[in-house]
Amino acid sequence: MPAPDTPDPSTVDPNTVDPNVLDLSTIEQFVLTPELKGYPHDAAPRAIRDIGSAGWNVLRGDLPFPVALLKRSALDHNLAWMADFTRESGVLIAPHGKTTMAPQLFAQQLAAGAWGMTLATMQQVSLAVRLGLRRVILANQLVARADILQAARLLRDTPGLELHVLVDSMAQLALIEGVLAADAHDCRLLAMIECGIDGGRTGCRSVAQAMALARAIAGSSAVALSGIECYEGLQVTGHSATDAAAVTGLMQVVQQVARQCDAEGLFHGEEIVLSAGGSAAFDVVARTLPMQLSRPVRTILRSGCYLAHDSGFYQRFMEDIRARSGARWQERPGLQPALEIWCQVQSQPEPGLAILALGKRDASFDLDLPMPFAWVDAAGRAPIGKDWTIAKMNDQHAYLRFPPGPAPAVGDLIGCGISHPCTTFDKWRWLPVVDDSYNVRSAIQTFF
Amino acid sequence: MPAPDTPDPSTVDPNTVDPNVLDLSTIEQFVLTPELKGYPHDAAPRAIRDIGSAGWNVLRGDLPFPVALLKRSALDHNLAWMADFTRESGVLIAPHGKTTMAPQLFAQQLAAGAWGMTLATMQQVSLAVRLGLRRVILANQLVARADILQAARLLRDTPGLELHVLVDSMAQLALIEGVLAADAHDCRLLAMIECGIDGGRTGCRSVAQAMALARAIAGSSAVALSGIECYEGLQVTGHSATDAAAVTGLMQVVQQVARQCDAEGLFHGEEIVLSAGGSAAFDVVARTLPMQLSRPVRTILRSGCYLAHDSGFYQRFMEDIRARSGARWQERPGLQPALEIWCQVQSQPEPGLAILALGKRDASFDLDLPMPFAWVDAAGRAPIGKDWTIAKMNDQHAYLRFPPGPAPAVGDLIGCGISHPCTTFDKWRWLPVVDDSYNVRSAIQTFF
Repeated sequence: MPAPDTPDPSTVDPNTVDPNVLDLSTIEQFVLTPELKGYPHDAAPRAIRDIGSAGWNVLRGDLPFPVALLKRSALDHNLAWMADFTRESGVLIAPHGKTTMAPQLFAQQLAAGAWGMTLATMQQVSLAVRLGLRRVILANQLVARADILQAARLLRDTPGLELHVLVDSMAQLALIEGVLAADAHDCRLLAMIECGIDGGRTGCRSVAQAMALARAIAGSSAVALSGIECYEGLQVTGHSATDAAAVTGLMQVVQQVARQCDAEGLFHGEEIVLSAGGSAAFDVVARTLPMQLSRPVRTILRSGCYLAHDSGFYQRFMEDIRARSGARWQERPGLQPALEIWCQVQSQPEPGLAILALGKRDASFDLDLPMPFAWVDAAGRAPIGKDWTIAKMNDQHAYLRFPPGPAPAVGDLIGCGISHPCTTFDKWRWLPVVDDSYNVRSAIQTFF
Repeated sequence: MPAPDTPDPSTVDPNTVDPNVLDLSTIEQFVLTPELKGYPHDAAPRAIRDIGSAGWNVLRGDLPFPVALLKRSALDHNLAWMADFTRESGVLIAPHGKTTMAPQLFAQQLAAGAWGMTLATMQQVSLAVRLGLRRVILANQLVARADILQAARLLRDTPGLELHVLVDSMAQLALIEGVLAADAHDCRLLAMIECGIDGGRTGCRSVAQAMALARAIAGSSAVALSGIECYEGLQVTGHSATDAAAVTGLMQVVQQVARQCDAEGLFHGEEIVLSAGGSAAFDVVARTLPMQLSRPVRTILRSGCYLAHDSGFYQRFMEDIRARSGARWQERPGLQPALEIWCQVQSQPEPGLAILALGKRDASFDLDLPMPFAWVDAAGRAPIGKDWTIAKMNDQHAYLRFPPGPAPAVGDLIGCGISHPCTTFDKWRWLPVVDDSYNVRSAIQTFF
């Protein structure tokens, strides 16, 4: 379903099989310098593409601490896991790129079979489209005049671009129509109607409201109805059966609206898009959202956190996802945490307390504090206590509490998992990618 | 008190009156592009120094929302306020630069009379020294081999550099000595002993512990004792009398250690540094820390948040600070919030609820959620309800709750104050600086 007033992607370049070919050359050439957090103080500036040949090792202290890193083996595992899961489930995925805002990782997700990418703002969309992304879901209401104009500009200037935005109110539709009419942009934006729930976030609160909006969109010269979507992630609590019922209920609302829109002939394209899916209950979405309509239906997940995964919030949901998904998914390992932060003990001022040089400027703290999983003392890897926990964080410090017994010493390294990758990624302008021995093999750049 | 093995600053260049002259030319020449959050989608790339001549206005929507901005008038007010306060109190200030990590703001703080800057990591120190900073307090324990070597390297390569680091344990001192002995660096690091409190963060827990460490430092060939310091900010609760007593008590510990070190002749330089001071009770520090010793004493505050101030956490302490500081400081206005975030209503899905396009990736949420203070609807500025509050934030959304009455509409602008400037600054790679009519007059770049 190409944007209505731009050429069909298949006619743009018959040699382009994959519409999403990202050109990463500007990123690969970007030069990292010692003024960037995590870059060695005394190393010469190096282009991203040359980081892997520097011969650095994180545990040897070649990069200053704290340092956030990605494990290549876990990234690869997670890419393959989700590719298998979506293939087996018969759904597509447009991973939410806001998590990492790392186009190099977008390219790996696309290479693993992702249909396109989801993004949160027009700034993020513009960057990705400039690099070559051609299938995009803006998982937000488009309301700002500057953003509406930018969407129209991208569609006009980018042959083959398929951009879906969210609409959830007549007021928002009127804003878009006002801007596009006034500026005489000759295109219609593809819009998905968002279904929400009472007490929730964005989204129409009833089928009647969604249908009134769908009929208005069908009659609009500025916007075309491409599908129906929702975001179920805020309803997920960690009680598996309750979560499954709540998510299934919301999918049924999306289906009801889609069925009615189909019956009334309100959809614009040759295909109909249905979309949902955070990273906490995407299995329920994959099982319950797909449906038959009068035209082909594309069901697109938008999970963003599966790639880095984590050691806290999303890790807790993983067991439920595997348990609900049948024997095959219980037998193979689940998603693995790929994002770690390594830091150093800077003080051990009282029995049972070590102060780590790691703070709110470095690691997620919104859902859980970082979770220590590895300890390297002067003699090498040591077995970390199971009940070593970070109890508090300040801007630049973390409070590691530990019971009587082996104790971390000043200068020791502590490896921490994190909870909620989004709020760790946005604290780093680049991250090294390491092998299982913590040799730095490559680097990614982020765009926050 | 110059670093012991580098020339005295006054002999380096007799024409250099101010040792801290920052060269901002690389920053002024840095080119901003539309891929940076807050930069207009369709504007040509522009160097930092040319942002002020672009003719942009935030309320007109020239920059995409959300956008974090600094108000020039509030910055100027706060610079003057703190210059007057420290001058009147007879103390110096080395503002903590970790708050903003914006060397352009460092230069304004230095121009307003700051003695030097405080920083949190050797990466931050290295950047500032490279730009020209010559008086630095690293307000953290130096423990990493790479950081110790970098400190030594900076001292060796930077004539006139005065760098103080913190030491709080024999273990840490041994680490420093081990690294510097092994690498045969021909210099002694200036170190301040940190005093802490039981149940607190870093710092020696007793006078006896601090004295043992001071004696060890006095006998060290790698480290020289330059002063005594503490951080009182974690003890401040908002109960003015209790806070004053707690902070005064900690200052008395610092004084006791300093007096004893002085009596034993353990200090290295011609002057002795005493330092403390976050941004919540610096008035108590300024009144109670200065003391007479056998050599001249420099009392240095390290407050970092006074420049941007805020509308929450630090705002609440301001009244106590003014009340404790006598009539003159009650008569003049206190510090003003200089950091604001503007965003747009993207949905108004239920009575009493507006969803703002503003999230955890954009604004502080660690101490309080953003506080709406301004409302601009289609007709212009409207009086915002006193009980409009942001009740929750997700990664990219904020939940604005409001009672029956005038209601924000989709597309309206909401201006928000923030609480804790540190955790907002680090979410933005650049910020526009605006006049009181929200015309963009300049821009600052951050280095996180």
